Amino acid sequence: MAHLDRIFHSLADSTRRAVIAQLAIGPASISDLAQRHHMALPSFMKHIRVLEQSDIVVSRKSGRVRMCELRPESLKTAQGWLESERRTWETRLNQLDTFVENLAAKDNADGNR
Amino acid sequence: MAHLDRIFHSLADSTRRAVIAQLAIGPASISDLAQRHHMALPSFMKHIRVLEQSDIVVSRKSGRVRMCELRPESLKTAQGWLESERRTWETRLNQLDTFVENLAAKDNADGNR
Repeated sequence: MAHLDRIFHSLADSTRRAVIAQLAIGPASISDLAQRHHMALPSFMKHIRVLEQSDIVVSRKSGRVRMCELRPESLKTAQGWLESERRTWETRLNQLDTFVENLAAKDNADGNR
Repeated sequence: MAHLDRIFHSLADSTRRAVIAQLAIGPASISDLAQRHHMALPSFMKHIRVLEQSDIVVSRKSGRVRMCELRPESLKTAQGWLESERRTWETRLNQLDTFVENLAAKDNADGNR
């Protein structure tokens, strides 16, 4: 899977988005996160693994606890892709506007002849 | 599936992202798009259906041709979600910076006593 595929796949699940929202506020332990989502650790770990594979989350063992942290670079990559498509779309709309305005101006000029 | 789930799922595939990039430039017929991606129509239609289900693309029959158009609202929804998480994350970083600066200033003041 390409990096963008993995990033968007990670974001396509409400539990994983909630984890991202939680980690944007600050690091948290996997067991705390699992508890907050009322999930058993093994099924919750699958979500963490998906988030780690897309480099959105990094986890580190700290004593007996595994802590998760957000890595915002991947989210920025996704935002960048969306932003670039939006700009292409808006450029096209502006060009259409200009085209229609020029057409109207030409019509007016022709009418005034 | 929630709307955001469907949007991000749509984006998690390079063929679908390429279709979005193509439609940002302007509307296109399904058969043109399929040809451009060297795909048979039936398998390509699956991608179009995913894009339609997330309201990213709308298709309309125009004579004997089915034309696809981009609906940028769903992409804006996705961008909005990412933007909001980024802002939360940056607010936290700024708070951490201020905290560390205050700590350093306090240390300096204590050292000068």
